[in-house]
Amino acid sequence: MLTLEKLRDAQRVLSQAVHKTDVIRAARLTDEYELFLKTENLQTTGSFKLRGAYYKISRLSEEEKARGVIACSAGNHAQGVALAATKNHIRSLICLPAGAPISKVEATKGYGADVCLVPGVYDDAYARAVQLQKERGYTFIHPFDDEDVIAGQGTVGLEIIEQLEGVDAVVVPVGGGGLISGVAFAIKSVAPHVKVYGVQAAGAPSMLNALRDGRIGALSSVSTIADGIAVKQPGKYTYDYCKRYVNGIVTVSDEEIARAILALLEREKMVAEGAGATPVAAILAGKLPELKGKRVCCVVSGGNIDVTILSRIIDRGLLMSGRKCTLNIELADQPGQLVRVTGIIAECGANITSVHHEHASENGIIGCFVRIEMETRDFAHIDHIRKAFKEAGFKIS
Amino acid sequence: MLTLEKLRDAQRVLSQAVHKTDVIRAARLTDEYELFLKTENLQTTGSFKLRGAYYKISRLSEEEKARGVIACSAGNHAQGVALAATKNHIRSLICLPAGAPISKVEATKGYGADVCLVPGVYDDAYARAVQLQKERGYTFIHPFDDEDVIAGQGTVGLEIIEQLEGVDAVVVPVGGGGLISGVAFAIKSVAPHVKVYGVQAAGAPSMLNALRDGRIGALSSVSTIADGIAVKQPGKYTYDYCKRYVNGIVTVSDEEIARAILALLEREKMVAEGAGATPVAAILAGKLPELKGKRVCCVVSGGNIDVTILSRIIDRGLLMSGRKCTLNIELADQPGQLVRVTGIIAECGANITSVHHEHASENGIIGCFVRIEMETRDFAHIDHIRKAFKEAGFKIS
Repeated sequence: MLTLEKLRDAQRVLSQAVHKTDVIRAARLTDEYELFLKTENLQTTGSFKLRGAYYKISRLSEEEKARGVIACSAGNHAQGVALAATKNHIRSLICLPAGAPISKVEATKGYGADVCLVPGVYDDAYARAVQLQKERGYTFIHPFDDEDVIAGQGTVGLEIIEQLEGVDAVVVPVGGGGLISGVAFAIKSVAPHVKVYGVQAAGAPSMLNALRDGRIGALSSVSTIADGIAVKQPGKYTYDYCKRYVNGIVTVSDEEIARAILALLEREKMVAEGAGATPVAAILAGKLPELKGKRVCCVVSGGNIDVTILSRIIDRGLLMSGRKCTLNIELADQPGQLVRVTGIIAECGANITSVHHEHASENGIIGCFVRIEMETRDFAHIDHIRKAFKEAGFKIS
Repeated sequence: MLTLEKLRDAQRVLSQAVHKTDVIRAARLTDEYELFLKTENLQTTGSFKLRGAYYKISRLSEEEKARGVIACSAGNHAQGVALAATKNHIRSLICLPAGAPISKVEATKGYGADVCLVPGVYDDAYARAVQLQKERGYTFIHPFDDEDVIAGQGTVGLEIIEQLEGVDAVVVPVGGGGLISGVAFAIKSVAPHVKVYGVQAAGAPSMLNALRDGRIGALSSVSTIADGIAVKQPGKYTYDYCKRYVNGIVTVSDEEIARAILALLEREKMVAEGAGATPVAAILAGKLPELKGKRVCCVVSGGNIDVTILSRIIDRGLLMSGRKCTLNIELADQPGQLVRVTGIIAECGANITSVHHEHASENGIIGCFVRIEMETRDFAHIDHIRKAFKEAGFKIS
């Protein structure tokens, strides 16, 4: 059973291995809330998962330690278990689906784990991990539904109360529910007046559904860019803790998550993964209006996002905020047209990044068009450019 | 004159207004050095500049405060002065060149400054600021060559010594020299055995040249992606402090800076601007080999980089590390070719992001080619894909 003594013990054990991440004022994200960020994305391994894994492993018997541990994950839990085991001088084996991103496989190996790539998807890797555990006597480290793991994650809550005087509410991402269970238990134990809210991806609302239905069900599928919280079924322990200690759960869309990732990157100078950005997404999208004017701490739970995805989110964000624009311009097929087009753009002060010029469009034999991508200042700037083209007699789309 | 007492006074004054930024272990960047980051990119306003501006303004007489302050900057200094003035309840006027990025203008206004957009470049804005100062009696806040400003920046050094036991060396970006002057003075005052190194952009080595030549000169031009340290001429005070207290200055190329920005983003989950990434660039590029195995703290001085630039750096980084690739494939101009091409790519497990198919290339009437952009895992993966195309009889370039 979770007790405050156990959480304090976890805090003592973790003090050697885990960074007490900073709480940062995020004034540039919003002025409607007094917003702070608990920066677990800057934690060793790039997420809070090290905490639970480390505390769990530290409590194994010598015999269990000698046999080693096993886990199944393509993400933050894998890296947390790998490093926690290595720091405790024991062996770890991590089962990953064979299609897992190379960067995650390499990071897991880098923290000292043996990696077992299992053909198929997550469920196949999980089945293989269970089989290996039985055959070889490893201890299985569950990613969330384990009270030692939950106690480790709960140290995030103790730290917030220590670090942020006068906090009114803490907002936490929810997948399987390990982090929020620990944080909510910790906070209600030491500062019961502080509210704790959870945020799930709209495409994976398993804990929300369970609390609504009064029982744990399994989603048939999940779909979200927040892969760290794409969990079909919450845990038994975590369901009970959420029911008792959490003040409410809201959901956010992928679009809202992407906007929060970009806002954190641009205004707070930090990289959050999809799951880690959900609390900020909920605040910025107005999903928790009862917290307006309050001192709110969002847990940015992790930062392990693929830079390819990050690059796409930036591109999309630039497009959505008018800082990037693509114009298709119809031209008469005669010399000098591109000079006129690029001249107009230069006069308007936009920066061309790509030109695609093509003859023989579907508009007839003598038509042609040019597609120009450019960097712009904002939507007003784009309107200005469009107007300039129209005034010069060009047809644009 | 700078004294340790003055630095301690600055630390006391700043304790109310400035965040004591975290020092973070950066184990994922390198294992050849015991590397730490002083995260001034996570400082309020996104850079250390708030420190010097705030301390300078706090020491003005009531009469000077009543008249207000003026500064000229298109960057971090503008935001630092604006917020420092607002927090001290005084007026600030910031002159910016009219072409300054809208985001910086808006941020400066957002911190409460009046903004004066001056047609032309930085030098024009500077001339206008000097003129306005004379006409209206504002106090001019110099971005670096002022001992109060230097004392404010020096608090970064005091914090590092407090926060990082056993540090052997501190590495600091150098533009005009305000930050490194303060940091070097602070560190040599309280821990004289700790080495202090500076890093300049190869395209703007003004302090390096001055120390080499034994006198201050002006570069005729500067060229670097690290706009925060693109300074043509170091200050008089800062030159003297660097000569006395700095152990050495090295330079890094734009390519090395870009690689450091990407490494910080991907592995340490934080956004650094060009200037802020130069110390990490110097370490990763092996410019300070004498520090191998040592406990080194790099000052990440700021995070205010345009996301458009960041997006380009990511794209280039993906290309340079084999995670993005473009293939030009010659095709016979007959039905079914694109099916074969895309089939090969799918079998190889790469993800197509763009297809550009064009008839009538310079290779003859019946030739055509397709240019495919795709996401790949690494260079070995790209080789594998190239080989698959060759084996299927395609010509690629």
